[in-house]
Amino acid sequence: MKIVVDAFGGDNAPLEIIEGAVIALERNPSLEIILCGDEKKINEILAGRGAGRVEISHAPDVILNTEHPTEAIRKKKDSSMVRAFDILKERDDVIGLVSAGSTGAVLTGAIMKIGRIKGISRPALAPILPTKLDSDVIIIDSGANVDCKPVNLLHFALMGSAYYSIRYNVEAPRVALLNNGVEEGKGNELVKEVFPLLKSAPINFIGNREGSDFMSGQVDVMVADGFAGNALLKGTEGAAATILSLLKKSIKSHFSSKIGYLFMRKTFKELRSRIDVQSKHAGSPLLGCKKLVVKNHGNCKRMNIAASIQQTIQLHENKLNERIEQAISKLTSEGQGE
Amino acid sequence: MKIVVDAFGGDNAPLEIIEGAVIALERNPSLEIILCGDEKKINEILAGRGAGRVEISHAPDVILNTEHPTEAIRKKKDSSMVRAFDILKERDDVIGLVSAGSTGAVLTGAIMKIGRIKGISRPALAPILPTKLDSDVIIIDSGANVDCKPVNLLHFALMGSAYYSIRYNVEAPRVALLNNGVEEGKGNELVKEVFPLLKSAPINFIGNREGSDFMSGQVDVMVADGFAGNALLKGTEGAAATILSLLKKSIKSHFSSKIGYLFMRKTFKELRSRIDVQSKHAGSPLLGCKKLVVKNHGNCKRMNIAASIQQTIQLHENKLNERIEQAISKLTSEGQGE
Repeated sequence: MKIVVDAFGGDNAPLEIIEGAVIALERNPSLEIILCGDEKKINEILAGRGAGRVEISHAPDVILNTEHPTEAIRKKKDSSMVRAFDILKERDDVIGLVSAGSTGAVLTGAIMKIGRIKGISRPALAPILPTKLDSDVIIIDSGANVDCKPVNLLHFALMGSAYYSIRYNVEAPRVALLNNGVEEGKGNELVKEVFPLLKSAPINFIGNREGSDFMSGQVDVMVADGFAGNALLKGTEGAAATILSLLKKSIKSHFSSKIGYLFMRKTFKELRSRIDVQSKHAGSPLLGCKKLVVKNHGNCKRMNIAASIQQTIQLHENKLNERIEQAISKLTSEGQGE
Repeated sequence: MKIVVDAFGGDNAPLEIIEGAVIALERNPSLEIILCGDEKKINEILAGRGAGRVEISHAPDVILNTEHPTEAIRKKKDSSMVRAFDILKERDDVIGLVSAGSTGAVLTGAIMKIGRIKGISRPALAPILPTKLDSDVIIIDSGANVDCKPVNLLHFALMGSAYYSIRYNVEAPRVALLNNGVEEGKGNELVKEVFPLLKSAPINFIGNREGSDFMSGQVDVMVADGFAGNALLKGTEGAAATILSLLKKSIKSHFSSKIGYLFMRKTFKELRSRIDVQSKHAGSPLLGCKKLVVKNHGNCKRMNIAASIQQTIQLHENKLNERIEQAISKLTSEGQGE
């Protein structure tokens, strides 16, 4: 099993990326990894680890966040990211790609070099958030597609459901449509058209849900256009940061609270680990691509990279793309494809 | 100064509504209030309080949340809400209306009975949230208008800026456009068209901001279409509830944390009062109406009603609607009106 890693994408590259790859190698004896990037620097960090199971593809260039995605993918042929995509495209033995580089460039690279699954109108990103209960929730799309047609959201729902099902080993994930009210008939023109499509799709559609239900544990897959989905995702992140910041400020300003904090350290540690998605989770796969592409947050650390590689293996072994293809062909045969 | 109150709108009506009106009367010696609803029940609760300064308009019917707004406003002429709108419309000495009834019915009633300020394409609701710093932030629109044109968002920005300016006594509130990235050129078709309109509008436009910036204290007025705005608003509410719930669960599960909680009660009280907007704030005015209409949350309590009445007085004295008219006429004279 081979996975290609863009060793120079992300704020903490190459160190954290390569260390993440090493952890994944240690955990998966049959795994092989191809690291793309400056060969000398990669070898320095590896210091002999992974010998025989790591291949290095020398690509000295790097795509920056500030670059125009399409231009960067076209022109920077010797960048770590373009090289990784070329390898994923050309080599049948490589099952997936992991990158923490520019989101725009990863999306563009995936579409230009790898292409969409037949019938999928738009690939989408589906990041994970914690809920009030013990489950997690995904939002699809979270920002890759800001202007959507109804069929796009239908495909997001199918892909999100297949992904959640594999990732959490849940047979029929509860799929909801993000709306400004729960009643049928609520919403903007887009979601009003999407509702009947989801109702008759081969998924466990539970109806409209509001943003306040997102982290309630009542929803597994929240479906939205990328603009509203991004507002919801970022809003929850901002709210979490705000509350922790207010809590910290208040603790500092009362002597008794400072004492209390000493007794509550376990709780704060627990809370932080539960809400800080970044600390342990894998990145989001770009669902709908012909081959597995996992996009990590720009400031991710080694544990995220290791988790993303692990997730790539899991999604491959559980045939994510085949399941998406089946769901789509089921739709198409019923005349709802595009 | 007279304000009309829908005494039978909201989950806690009529008790909390009437008690809120009584508090406002106590605080404002020159205030007079007209209470609409079942006269006998209102008199029972008043028990003689507010004598000489309270007028009761007997309207025994009530509009329910489940009713279709337009139909309810048309047919339930003897409902507390319709009566309140009729009084606001007909009597020049009444400066505003406060209701905690069905949002749809309040919106419909305001538009059908009172009408829009000349030049305003769509009235909008602008609820308030706390930020990480000591300031508050408003989101406009928060759900009244789910399908928007660029000019609607331009008007939201003008109205939100005028409202924030009066409510917080800030000369030039920082107005931002909700987007999925901060760079100019980001976003869906709608916000791409809105950006240049806001740039040349007579407001302090600070550019695009993401949902994660909403509660950062860096934004005073967040402008969005009602669908994305609702996702952001509800998402932050849900995230706050989730974090407090996770915190509570963790405290309960560790003995040391329970001890710590005893020392930290001040902090938790502070936090709750800061993030629980419902506990003290006024409702949101329906900005862009010819007369002041303040919509409270359905489950609001007496302090919210008192605050909403206070806010109506403040917005009237500071000539909110005149300021909105001026901003609009300034636009129209520059050819950006509609």
